[in-house]
Amino acid sequence: MNSHSVFASIITIGDELLIGQTIDTNSAWMAQHLNQIGVWVKRRVAVGDNREAIWQTLDEELNQSDIILITGGLGPTADDITKPLLCDYFGGKLIVDPSALNHVKYVFEEILKRPLLERNLKQAEVPDNCTVLLNKRGTAPGMWFEKQAAGTDKKKIIVSLPGVPHEMKGLMTDEVLPRLQHAFKMPRILHRTLLTAGAGESFIAERLQEWEEELPHPYKLAYLPSFGMVRLRLTGIVTNENGSNTIDQLFSELKEKVKDILVLEEDIKIEERVSQILKQKEKTVASAESCSGGYIAHLLTSIAGSSAYYKGTVVAYSYDAKENLLGVNPNTLLTHGAVSSETVKEMLSGLLSRTGADYGIATSGIMGPDGGTADKPVGTVWVAVGKKDNIISKCFHFRFDRQRNIQLTAAHALLFLLRFLEQEEA
Amino acid sequence: MNSHSVFASIITIGDELLIGQTIDTNSAWMAQHLNQIGVWVKRRVAVGDNREAIWQTLDEELNQSDIILITGGLGPTADDITKPLLCDYFGGKLIVDPSALNHVKYVFEEILKRPLLERNLKQAEVPDNCTVLLNKRGTAPGMWFEKQAAGTDKKKIIVSLPGVPHEMKGLMTDEVLPRLQHAFKMPRILHRTLLTAGAGESFIAERLQEWEEELPHPYKLAYLPSFGMVRLRLTGIVTNENGSNTIDQLFSELKEKVKDILVLEEDIKIEERVSQILKQKEKTVASAESCSGGYIAHLLTSIAGSSAYYKGTVVAYSYDAKENLLGVNPNTLLTHGAVSSETVKEMLSGLLSRTGADYGIATSGIMGPDGGTADKPVGTVWVAVGKKDNIISKCFHFRFDRQRNIQLTAAHALLFLLRFLEQEEA
Repeated sequence: MNSHSVFASIITIGDELLIGQTIDTNSAWMAQHLNQIGVWVKRRVAVGDNREAIWQTLDEELNQSDIILITGGLGPTADDITKPLLCDYFGGKLIVDPSALNHVKYVFEEILKRPLLERNLKQAEVPDNCTVLLNKRGTAPGMWFEKQAAGTDKKKIIVSLPGVPHEMKGLMTDEVLPRLQHAFKMPRILHRTLLTAGAGESFIAERLQEWEEELPHPYKLAYLPSFGMVRLRLTGIVTNENGSNTIDQLFSELKEKVKDILVLEEDIKIEERVSQILKQKEKTVASAESCSGGYIAHLLTSIAGSSAYYKGTVVAYSYDAKENLLGVNPNTLLTHGAVSSETVKEMLSGLLSRTGADYGIATSGIMGPDGGTADKPVGTVWVAVGKKDNIISKCFHFRFDRQRNIQLTAAHALLFLLRFLEQEEA
Repeated sequence: MNSHSVFASIITIGDELLIGQTIDTNSAWMAQHLNQIGVWVKRRVAVGDNREAIWQTLDEELNQSDIILITGGLGPTADDITKPLLCDYFGGKLIVDPSALNHVKYVFEEILKRPLLERNLKQAEVPDNCTVLLNKRGTAPGMWFEKQAAGTDKKKIIVSLPGVPHEMKGLMTDEVLPRLQHAFKMPRILHRTLLTAGAGESFIAERLQEWEEELPHPYKLAYLPSFGMVRLRLTGIVTNENGSNTIDQLFSELKEKVKDILVLEEDIKIEERVSQILKQKEKTVASAESCSGGYIAHLLTSIAGSSAYYKGTVVAYSYDAKENLLGVNPNTLLTHGAVSSETVKEMLSGLLSRTGADYGIATSGIMGPDGGTADKPVGTVWVAVGKKDNIISKCFHFRFDRQRNIQLTAAHALLFLLRFLEQEEA
């Protein structure tokens, strides 16, 4: 971060964030997109539906940042206090905005086909000293305020957006980001990210220590461990033209240093890389899931265009389902148990013949909290991957809670398949 | 919020939060659990890996709150600056804690079976003026500091925790929450939440306006719209004994007022309610998913103990898979298309006979961004629910992006099944 940077604060409003009823996904999305246009997010603050708290937070953040983005607190119900507050804060008065009014009427009459209430009309009220940003996806408009920073010729920008994620995203994309690019001369924030597997954070740090210490200003390296793998992120904020040459060169050096544990050279998910390879080979994939319970299917089908390479999934929890839906031999289940190399291999082989998929993944394990034995404690998971004439399997030992074990199983099963696909290429 | 409340601030540290690489799920979990013991979270602040920013945030939050919980910035790599900073902030010096050191050695030698590095030993270093909280699930210990508030006899408590979610949760549950309960005399924060479907936020607000205005202090109502449904939350912070009688009475009134649109009387998920009913009836469920891509399976199997009532799922994206795995008649697909009442009904019927499940859900739709037609635009989804001799179907029209359409489909399909199960009971 250097003196040329444009700084932003994100303020999210709503008691639901403070009592933990809602997970804030808006801030991450906003930060990502601000970064892409060269804005560095300095702080993110969540405050309750409380006038004094919001006022004070606005004061604090205006002291620090050039841009303040506010989400939440604009709905039609009584717990919303943001709009009158903003009106007072910037010394304006509430007026009805004709275009916002037309839009509210249109949404109720044409889309929702519900009668329009007095309180919906109030959504078209805005402070008279803001620029109204039309919200195509909802009824609460966005509001754009500008303020001269005290004692300077610098301008501060404050934008209030609804908290509903798809409305916020639409307004950011259509209105806020283009306007911000126009309002400031931005530096470029460059990131290069890779994913490693098979070595711990401290081991990687040991290996990279010297190189990291010699990184030129303003580049820095961050370690992001997740699900037993470690993501490495190289970041630089640059104003000159050559920034991307330098970061690309540094990134090449980094890749070379971790090449034995390198999984991905981009900031994408493992399932995205799997889908790229399958599309390129024009091959298909399917999954037979016991313990992962459909989560691998969900990850594979969350990618747009997945119908090109994804065939289908059978989630078979019970012995019955493993026999009937996947053709697992009852003797295999009796002799080796559901959580065994033999069972996952038969699940996969049955899946491939039933779906006609070229490649597949099968999982069976004990996710907890119950179901563990001395032999096979909670966290024991067998995974098979491969194709018709070449199926391999592997046992994993995870720990801890159910949710995490499901995610770990999916991540490592997809990595296992990715390695299989890469081996074939080699 | 009244003067008897104990206030907390949550500070999360890490550039990954500010560039949007990570979604902060820790804060919501912490807030929920703080609430349960009577602590009101006043603010949540995310700051980067930057000494000045963290120092300033600590100053600000100590001005506002009795308790400061910090997560992140304690890993073994070079981007971690939190520990030396806390040491300086509270005027201590770093020493090696013998119990933390033994634990780090144990984790590397016995669990990870990896050689121990110099930098891992540093994880056992702690400021000499804190209480060390043993982290059973990782190597970075928690640190508990106490500070007299200037000019009063009130005590402020600052706790630093690792950012890895399951490590943070373990430390909170085992150490932090019990110690906080001991350190403060807590009020009780009472919440009652219900879920409605079928009426918009403003409509409900209109209906409840008078009642809401007459709510006695300190009770308040909040509206939380999500996925086309609206959650209503009644909250009160009370110090006397009768608080829960009062809130239960108010909650009964509220339920009565929305009984025609009431879905759930508790703050649980629809799939949890479905699972309760199935367990009680000793019946089983399965799903046949096209457009929801296994997400319904994931929701159903995320609940601990789901093997008691969950049979299995077939995710069938292609015509092939619908025919081979679910026995859908090719003529049905040709005549009516994959996204039709006829197809989802046949998917469900094939699923029920193949899995032997008592109840089931089937989905087929167009999630986007591609695949829409004039007839069936993106967001068109057919859902069937029911049992062998009674299958019903319904068409939904969602909009917008793929991720949201998948979630909307799952939520409304589960609600559709819940209504079916309730009808049977009636």
